[in-house]
Amino acid sequence: MSEIHALHSMFYPKTVAMVGVSPNPQGWGGTSFLIRLLDIGFPGKIYPIHPKADKIQGLKAYPNVQSVPEPLDLVMIAVSAPNVPQILEDCIEAGAKNVHIFSSGFSETGEEEGIKLERQITEIIKRGNLRVIGPNCMGLYVPDSKLAAWGVKPAGTGHLAFLSQSGGHGEILTAYAQPFGVYFSKIISFGNACGLQVADYLDYLRQDPDTRFISIYLEGIKDGDRVVPLIKEINRTKPVIIWKGGMTEAGSRAVASHTGSLAGEGRIWDGFFKQTGAIRVNSLEEIIDVVLAFMYLKPCQGRQTLLLGGGGGNSVAFADICSRQGLEIPQLSEKTREELNAFIRLAGNSTRNPLDLWMIQTDVNLYRRVMEIVMADPAIDLAIVDRLAGFGNFDDDDGVSKEEREKTLNEVNDFLSEFAKNNPYGKPLVVSMNLYGSDLLLAGTSVQRRLEFIKSGVAAYPSLESAARAMFRFVNYHKFLAKQK
Amino acid sequence: MSEIHALHSMFYPKTVAMVGVSPNPQGWGGTSFLIRLLDIGFPGKIYPIHPKADKIQGLKAYPNVQSVPEPLDLVMIAVSAPNVPQILEDCIEAGAKNVHIFSSGFSETGEEEGIKLERQITEIIKRGNLRVIGPNCMGLYVPDSKLAAWGVKPAGTGHLAFLSQSGGHGEILTAYAQPFGVYFSKIISFGNACGLQVADYLDYLRQDPDTRFISIYLEGIKDGDRVVPLIKEINRTKPVIIWKGGMTEAGSRAVASHTGSLAGEGRIWDGFFKQTGAIRVNSLEEIIDVVLAFMYLKPCQGRQTLLLGGGGGNSVAFADICSRQGLEIPQLSEKTREELNAFIRLAGNSTRNPLDLWMIQTDVNLYRRVMEIVMADPAIDLAIVDRLAGFGNFDDDDGVSKEEREKTLNEVNDFLSEFAKNNPYGKPLVVSMNLYGSDLLLAGTSVQRRLEFIKSGVAAYPSLESAARAMFRFVNYHKFLAKQK
Repeated sequence: MSEIHALHSMFYPKTVAMVGVSPNPQGWGGTSFLIRLLDIGFPGKIYPIHPKADKIQGLKAYPNVQSVPEPLDLVMIAVSAPNVPQILEDCIEAGAKNVHIFSSGFSETGEEEGIKLERQITEIIKRGNLRVIGPNCMGLYVPDSKLAAWGVKPAGTGHLAFLSQSGGHGEILTAYAQPFGVYFSKIISFGNACGLQVADYLDYLRQDPDTRFISIYLEGIKDGDRVVPLIKEINRTKPVIIWKGGMTEAGSRAVASHTGSLAGEGRIWDGFFKQTGAIRVNSLEEIIDVVLAFMYLKPCQGRQTLLLGGGGGNSVAFADICSRQGLEIPQLSEKTREELNAFIRLAGNSTRNPLDLWMIQTDVNLYRRVMEIVMADPAIDLAIVDRLAGFGNFDDDDGVSKEEREKTLNEVNDFLSEFAKNNPYGKPLVVSMNLYGSDLLLAGTSVQRRLEFIKSGVAAYPSLESAARAMFRFVNYHKFLAKQK
Repeated sequence: MSEIHALHSMFYPKTVAMVGVSPNPQGWGGTSFLIRLLDIGFPGKIYPIHPKADKIQGLKAYPNVQSVPEPLDLVMIAVSAPNVPQILEDCIEAGAKNVHIFSSGFSETGEEEGIKLERQITEIIKRGNLRVIGPNCMGLYVPDSKLAAWGVKPAGTGHLAFLSQSGGHGEILTAYAQPFGVYFSKIISFGNACGLQVADYLDYLRQDPDTRFISIYLEGIKDGDRVVPLIKEINRTKPVIIWKGGMTEAGSRAVASHTGSLAGEGRIWDGFFKQTGAIRVNSLEEIIDVVLAFMYLKPCQGRQTLLLGGGGGNSVAFADICSRQGLEIPQLSEKTREELNAFIRLAGNSTRNPLDLWMIQTDVNLYRRVMEIVMADPAIDLAIVDRLAGFGNFDDDDGVSKEEREKTLNEVNDFLSEFAKNNPYGKPLVVSMNLYGSDLLLAGTSVQRRLEFIKSGVAAYPSLESAARAMFRFVNYHKFLAKQK
């Protein structure tokens, strides 16, 4: 698409005015946005707007947007709610079309005054033909253009877009995802959506070459008729992952006091997901879980899963967990079992799926031999391998030193990293970290080992449940696409 | 109960013979048991049994159990499966009644030979009127009598019993629970249960004065007719918490290769839980989650929950999570909201339930004022308060230093600890730790802050989901008891 999208200048602004900044550097809201933009090295021009101040943060201040000497690509408004209508009128007068309203105090308060104010600004936006993000939101976070003034700094530019009706979720997701090497193309916190709607943002993200995956936190939508066909179309080339908040009655009431949206009924949303093929998740972590699968795995439509952990009790739990998430745990073929039984001692081990093989956990050669045999089994579509985070305060008293044990653990992990990426069968293999979280040391070790796997290009998960859930969704997405063809 | 229970001498043995120990200290199985018993300072007499050795680990060895010069309270067998029948015959000849068979290689292998061996030992046990734990299990773990030779050493004696068809689960649970100050009265890993059955152990735990809560990991039971009425009775005074493994088809197949049990059908177990009132859980962590509630909270039958976290998006998620777990999130009374609105700024905050009050998170006085008002509301039965683990790589740029922020966080936590234990309304208040787990530092901090809460006598949970789930089960238990009366 060679034509420049109407919203492009908002995401890559050369001139930004900030209304509602204070000469006091401790000021929250607009002032903290201004300080952070300077701090991050935003390359465009910034115009602080203040009725009296000459300079703010060393920048020349202007009394209003009309007095800024050049066209404005973006106006950020952080004044108190009752003053927002006047600023919008100023924008119309100044010919500034792109606006982000940070201010809250509108319909989300549930109070008459806020509802009235929201009606008023909606009218102004329409009349002035403004492109408005918000109100009651954090606006845009674009690492690529350094328009990224939220609490967590960008650590890189990436391919995940996040469209969110909660700014807090946007900040938390950034803090959570970046250490895993999952970076963002664009994050849009759009709040009460009095101006631009979900479909407008989606239309932008559809053509954005940096965006390969689109994640969405939604409370309610006002433009369902446009959104449904758009998502259906986009989802074919850019997987769309949606967390719909407010699905319970209590959650729906909370939505009303958050963004003033109507959350809508469960079965309407069931139909929405069925029709669009969008991937349904229930938390921010689950968004990243699914994205990791898309980043690292070859497409796969089968759900027959090999489980490899250790311990008979664990095997039962693992099989239950995966089945509940919709995966299937097939029996291995006779040939596979015969090949395994040739060198696996049956007492204390099991060569059935889930494999319960303590004896290979400390021997990378045996481990490799087992993996090569079982992944070749045509009954298997994908594998989940459960790994210990470490040994913590556990002592097996079997004469093997802790150092020796750690060394073997790492050797097997190294093999798995290689095998996950290059196994000759092209079957997805993901890792889950087995951790019981009362051990201070292991809590950190588990995250660290998970980070190591992910940074080496392996989809690794904080629990078997999260691994199984992500794999089910990944497989289902590819099945949906195949059916559409 | 003044009469001594038939199983007492197994749990508090004065003489133990260990069959299947090796002079080589690296030997697994029996040898590691022996070394650990010595290490922990087991006060009874230990007799290693070995066909040739004179001494093992400095103790005089005997060629067989018959040659031990005094009556044996417990014989532990760790020889290979085909040799087990002969040792059992020796026990009968020696008049030793109490036996723990560690050895595996029986029906759980699914092989003809193992199934035949299991039939053979079952016959010997019956004929000799032996009291046998196992085979294929870790046996007893009794901190009080120092018969505790598993991988994790006892850190104290406590009131939780764990009856488990998986020894691995026993070890993991010990490692997980003890750092929280949850200690054990008795752990019993009973494996394939060819001799003593679930009901026999329950009968012992019923009268055990040290046991106040009973947790069970079950794969299948052979003596359902005795177990159901027993659990129903015990549950009235000692809450019984059960994790039933193998509830899915794949899980049920895994059960077969683990302990050779038949896992049984879902609806039979549904009926079981409905009839007995036992608390159903799905993991080891969930056992401890429920136990913490019983340890620290006053009985409560209502499920109307106050939620206090922060952030509008979080409020929606919190309400959804708690509702899905079966709790209700009622609206606060007009009176309560008026009292809150008198000092809470509505823009950016919400005085509806879930409370979304960033402004009180850094002010312990405001926090206290809010808690005192909302907990007095008759619409509220209990409260879940979500707390930040810490600040990690998050920077709010609002002029507040990290040290200052940590200080306020701790002040509010201290207030909560006090208020949870002594609030004038006697309503349960539990804490959940809010953590997104990619931050190495926060992963540890979160566990540490959770430990601090728990050690100060507050039930604290690793996530809102786990807190809500535990509270629902706790409340349901008390409702069940009330209905029975």
